[in-house]
Amino acid sequence: MASSTAAAPPQFRAIGTRPIRHDGVDKVTGRAQYGADLRLPGMIFGKVLRSPHAHARIKSIDASRALACPGVLAVATARDLAPVSDADLTLKFLSNNILAGDKVLYKGHPVAAVAAENVHAAEAALKLIQVRYEPLPSVTDVRSAMADDAPALHPQFPNRRRGENGTLGPNVAEHQRVALGDTAKGFRKADLVVEQEFHIPTVHQGYIEPQNATAWWAAGGQLSVWCSSQAPFGIRTDTALVLGIPESSVRVVPMEIGGGFGGKLAAYLGPIAAVLSRKSGRPVKMTMTRAEVLEATGPNPGAFVRAKIGVTKKGRITAAEGYVAMEGGAYPGAFVAGALVSMFIPYDIPNVAIDAYDVVNNKPKSAPYRAPGAPLVSFAVESVLDQIAESLGVDPVEFRLANTAQEGTRRADGTRNPPIGCREVLEAVKSHPHYAAPLASNQGRGVAVGFWRNNTGASSVVVNVAPDGAVGLVTGSVDIGGSRVALALQLAESLGIPVEDVNPRVADTDTIGYTSNTSGSGVEFKTGWAVYEAAQDVKAQLRQRAALIWDTEAERVQYDNGFLLNLNSPGEVLTFKELAAQMNNTGGPITGRGNLSPMGVGGSAAAAILDVEVDPDTGKVAIIRATAFQDAGRAVHPSYVEGQIQGGTAQGIGWALNEEYIMSEDGTLLNTSFLDYRMPTSLDLPLIEAVIIEVPNPGHPYGVRGVGEASIIPPLAAVANAVYQATGYRFQSLPISPDRLLAALQGPEPGAEKST
Amino acid sequence: MASSTAAAPPQFRAIGTRPIRHDGVDKVTGRAQYGADLRLPGMIFGKVLRSPHAHARIKSIDASRALACPGVLAVATARDLAPVSDADLTLKFLSNNILAGDKVLYKGHPVAAVAAENVHAAEAALKLIQVRYEPLPSVTDVRSAMADDAPALHPQFPNRRRGENGTLGPNVAEHQRVALGDTAKGFRKADLVVEQEFHIPTVHQGYIEPQNATAWWAAGGQLSVWCSSQAPFGIRTDTALVLGIPESSVRVVPMEIGGGFGGKLAAYLGPIAAVLSRKSGRPVKMTMTRAEVLEATGPNPGAFVRAKIGVTKKGRITAAEGYVAMEGGAYPGAFVAGALVSMFIPYDIPNVAIDAYDVVNNKPKSAPYRAPGAPLVSFAVESVLDQIAESLGVDPVEFRLANTAQEGTRRADGTRNPPIGCREVLEAVKSHPHYAAPLASNQGRGVAVGFWRNNTGASSVVVNVAPDGAVGLVTGSVDIGGSRVALALQLAESLGIPVEDVNPRVADTDTIGYTSNTSGSGVEFKTGWAVYEAAQDVKAQLRQRAALIWDTEAERVQYDNGFLLNLNSPGEVLTFKELAAQMNNTGGPITGRGNLSPMGVGGSAAAAILDVEVDPDTGKVAIIRATAFQDAGRAVHPSYVEGQIQGGTAQGIGWALNEEYIMSEDGTLLNTSFLDYRMPTSLDLPLIEAVIIEVPNPGHPYGVRGVGEASIIPPLAAVANAVYQATGYRFQSLPISPDRLLAALQGPEPGAEKST
Repeated sequence: MASSTAAAPPQFRAIGTRPIRHDGVDKVTGRAQYGADLRLPGMIFGKVLRSPHAHARIKSIDASRALACPGVLAVATARDLAPVSDADLTLKFLSNNILAGDKVLYKGHPVAAVAAENVHAAEAALKLIQVRYEPLPSVTDVRSAMADDAPALHPQFPNRRRGENGTLGPNVAEHQRVALGDTAKGFRKADLVVEQEFHIPTVHQGYIEPQNATAWWAAGGQLSVWCSSQAPFGIRTDTALVLGIPESSVRVVPMEIGGGFGGKLAAYLGPIAAVLSRKSGRPVKMTMTRAEVLEATGPNPGAFVRAKIGVTKKGRITAAEGYVAMEGGAYPGAFVAGALVSMFIPYDIPNVAIDAYDVVNNKPKSAPYRAPGAPLVSFAVESVLDQIAESLGVDPVEFRLANTAQEGTRRADGTRNPPIGCREVLEAVKSHPHYAAPLASNQGRGVAVGFWRNNTGASSVVVNVAPDGAVGLVTGSVDIGGSRVALALQLAESLGIPVEDVNPRVADTDTIGYTSNTSGSGVEFKTGWAVYEAAQDVKAQLRQRAALIWDTEAERVQYDNGFLLNLNSPGEVLTFKELAAQMNNTGGPITGRGNLSPMGVGGSAAAAILDVEVDPDTGKVAIIRATAFQDAGRAVHPSYVEGQIQGGTAQGIGWALNEEYIMSEDGTLLNTSFLDYRMPTSLDLPLIEAVIIEVPNPGHPYGVRGVGEASIIPPLAAVANAVYQATGYRFQSLPISPDRLLAALQGPEPGAEKST
Repeated sequence: MASSTAAAPPQFRAIGTRPIRHDGVDKVTGRAQYGADLRLPGMIFGKVLRSPHAHARIKSIDASRALACPGVLAVATARDLAPVSDADLTLKFLSNNILAGDKVLYKGHPVAAVAAENVHAAEAALKLIQVRYEPLPSVTDVRSAMADDAPALHPQFPNRRRGENGTLGPNVAEHQRVALGDTAKGFRKADLVVEQEFHIPTVHQGYIEPQNATAWWAAGGQLSVWCSSQAPFGIRTDTALVLGIPESSVRVVPMEIGGGFGGKLAAYLGPIAAVLSRKSGRPVKMTMTRAEVLEATGPNPGAFVRAKIGVTKKGRITAAEGYVAMEGGAYPGAFVAGALVSMFIPYDIPNVAIDAYDVVNNKPKSAPYRAPGAPLVSFAVESVLDQIAESLGVDPVEFRLANTAQEGTRRADGTRNPPIGCREVLEAVKSHPHYAAPLASNQGRGVAVGFWRNNTGASSVVVNVAPDGAVGLVTGSVDIGGSRVALALQLAESLGIPVEDVNPRVADTDTIGYTSNTSGSGVEFKTGWAVYEAAQDVKAQLRQRAALIWDTEAERVQYDNGFLLNLNSPGEVLTFKELAAQMNNTGGPITGRGNLSPMGVGGSAAAAILDVEVDPDTGKVAIIRATAFQDAGRAVHPSYVEGQIQGGTAQGIGWALNEEYIMSEDGTLLNTSFLDYRMPTSLDLPLIEAVIIEVPNPGHPYGVRGVGEASIIPPLAAVANAVYQATGYRFQSLPISPDRLLAALQGPEPGAEKST
């Protein structure tokens, strides 16, 4: 892979190297165990009956004919879950999304499920379940859902919302606002104010591996759930809540995960499989088809965004306002917070105000997707900035540099930035040869910036030393992007041993301490730090053991990169391996623990330079060159940092060019396969050059920031800006698919505005 | 279950209670996962070709026809293991027992193995492997194997042994001797000296679950082995040695275990499955049939024992000598050390000398079996003591009490006893109503004593606190007798929380720190202590967190049985659960670790009163009443202590009455099923009353000694002594099977001596 990684500083021996990942061979040879690989004795198979309506009241469910089928062992409906009520809407919505209560709210909404000896028997039995529906009007667009006369999804909302603000309509679940300074005053100081509206389609994370779960509910009450998940501990909590059982009676075993991107944080099949297992007494496996994944797991919220930015003639931004309406889908949860903290954040703007709305409509409940909320607001902001730079006649990168946020800059929520790499990323863009390379006709170049705050949380690590000097590294952080090897590198660095001597393992929820989600680009930060702490614990014990052998005090033993030095007797040395071999006769095994919930997570800045070539005959946009920049803080394993940058960039390009939920009038998703829901493949894209910038995060022992998300942000606007340069049409609606670009080239197209 | 357990002292809240074991429901409902339950994607099946000869040279192996069979994916022979040489006989013997090298040494010795798509194809292919043997004379009796002209199993031995002592014969692998005082002088002080010879048959542990192993050798070199084992870490070491790969490249995953009793410490199938997996690229599962288990896994050594004891008229033992010859089977390893430390140990004898010999012969390599070595030497000692008591006209229990070992008594090896419970156990026997109950005709009562030192080793424990206040307890100690719940009780006691809130888990060798075998009755001692240490670690952190909440120092927070008390503010209290719920916002998760390799293991004394009724027409001996006594130190979970006592007693009775390896002249085992190899079932035995004595072990935080083994020792002599009382025939050869007792009743029988 191409890379312009800065060489790792010489103080590091392991961090910054590129060893083969420990799970690499397993994964490329088919040995790694994914949820669908699991086989348990007596296992049966579950399938879900899904709503054919986008919105309907369930009048009755009669499963008696299905239950009478040969090979059918159990049927589950919402009645098998813990009772819910309006007194706890959070639980009610959580539960109803797993199995519909009194209403179905999207096509594909689970209504019932069957477990049978095989999948075919289960599918056949589904057809025998008789559900009487009362269809209701549906709405699948975010702005239509905000109309006062829109069909109301949840009767609870008007009571909660209308009273507060009569204009919010029946489907607004939440309104959040942040403001800094005085935008009216700011705009008055501006010489140029640009305000535009943007439409961002609903897209899916598009992970390769469909959702799956196998549950076994023991007669004694202990429930085990094996599943593909980014959040075994979160799934444990939600499963217990939905089933109405103690959290500690649930064990979640994380299997390998074939992509998540935020879409595998929620429980879908596990609680259903659990009910079917409880009723049948058998382990129950459930897997989704691709159509089920697209129709009934959380996509990224579609959104309507308005961005208004004012600048002086000299190119200083004086004020900005944002308006964001995001689809929660069937239930609230559109991550408006993610939009709020991301909009305008790469810039130093004295007067900012952002309003964001979480709006329910008749689509599957939305789920996070890589930097959730940030790409859609950044698409708006970076498009408007591009337009302003053109209007001012300044270089768009210089313009951004002149307004870049940095350490100490106040953010829209009033807090101040810690050290961040926005400036360094922009400088890298400016000086990269790509930025100055020539373009041919029908080609255009777009640049955009993104910033994601990243997240942290609780994490727990156990390190155990084997007698041959190898080290077991046990975490609760599911590996979706190479975190086994990158955590092993942090351990190798901390202990001064070869990374090949580290055996990283992801443990189940009973076996490792509480560990928050694999999300928010947080694993290398929080679990990496827990690894560091566990290593300190191991080193302290090693020094004690060496002191025992040398008949001295631990204080007289120095640990130096895998060597123990006797300070009383210079030259007397024990290696890590030598001491490991002696541990069982100097007091027993050595294990270390690291537990924390650290503050100090560092946000990650990103940027992209994307060159497009537009085919005027077909409207097809080809990405002909792509360079993506990201501040990693510290690139622990540069290859996987590059992989994250490349993957995020590819997904951002897909969002810009092709991906969207195409819904029929009646709320049916029309593109339910990867043939029709078009994601870019390696054949569609050039090699994406990943440029790693390292502005160490002072809040982490090794300067790590987290790199899993920010790279998806820039491509949306970068593609649109490049298409504008190539065609003169500025698209404010995505995707810029061939049909829509062709229509624009052939005449006015809504959402595309010809430059004047 | 009947029990006369002393009530647990009031200072304990959890220890001494009898909760349902955490794995109980799983095990009785078929949910627990044993090795044979495992299914992996693409899994194939291996079978072993076994020697038809008890002793032969392998001239050649041609597997070409087998490999050509449809469905056959790989063949393994010893050539696929790491090269071995006489320079490292330990490795050579370890390896050759897994797959024969140049010689086969017992019928059933593995010669080759096949992996195929299914078991039937594998079995069919075995028949196509052409092995040319040169048969050699064989010997399967221990004393015959010691003759100078016996067939020599290992050419290395004569060179090593003959030079030292011309009388040892070619098959003595080891001679150990311990001596205390001057036995010649001691016998001169005696008024009565009795010397007798005893023959103890080869018996098998008879666990229900046959050996099994599934191996998956990844292309990257990482090998995983799932197996039924008492020693995942030991299996890891041996597997790596035999395969010639780094230990840390092997991960052993312990499955549930259906009985071990010492017989599941060694690797049999795992390395073979590993080779087949490496060659086929597939996971390979292997399971044994019962015949394979009996023919080719380690039975307990058959033995010849001589015991000589001198006493004064007043009943004081003045000297004792022992001679023990034990079968190692095909390779050395007859646990002569176990015999040496056990013979005469319950008694205070000033002059003792014991010689023990490890003798190889053409039987499967022997393996430990519950208190290995102790039952056979104790059978001799307790029989002779019974004879002496009769000769002196004293009560056999009073006689033993007069000579009992206690704290400070010097043992044969010169060391002194720590506090032990021999006297307390004998007092319990003496005062038990059973001892004075009347007997009818053809009935007899036998008493015998046993003592087992127990064992310790390295152990590692991780305890993690869940946000709902449940606690994960992770150990490396496989649970064969209820150790999950008994360790959970020690944790519950240490933390002052309900045992139901503890989720005990047994982890694989990568996930938990080095943990020595589940053997030597050591788990409750060593891992229990590690649990205690881990709990102290958790409590220290809980106090820190509470101090944070109360804005004080940890020293000002007291931990009292699940409550945290603010010493600065009397009445301010946090419960364990309340604090657990707050851990993630007071610094992150809480986990504790305990690592140690503790000294101070306490030996366990045992005794049995067994009543028999002899059917003079059939020779059948019925056990009509059984009371078994054992010093538990501290009975952590009395029900499982009773279970251990009852199980050990049942096995000892089986050994005394029925069990034996019946070998043909050519070294073929003739009784290779549980129909022919007769073990007592619940229908054969009365309810065994288990009497727990608690003489706390000062070397453990809760006084635990370990209870898994000693109870098997007394029944051998107790049965023989009872049969003597009922019939007048003193059996010095076991088993006292109906045919042999009938022969004795009908005329002189070798090994049974009519009292005069």
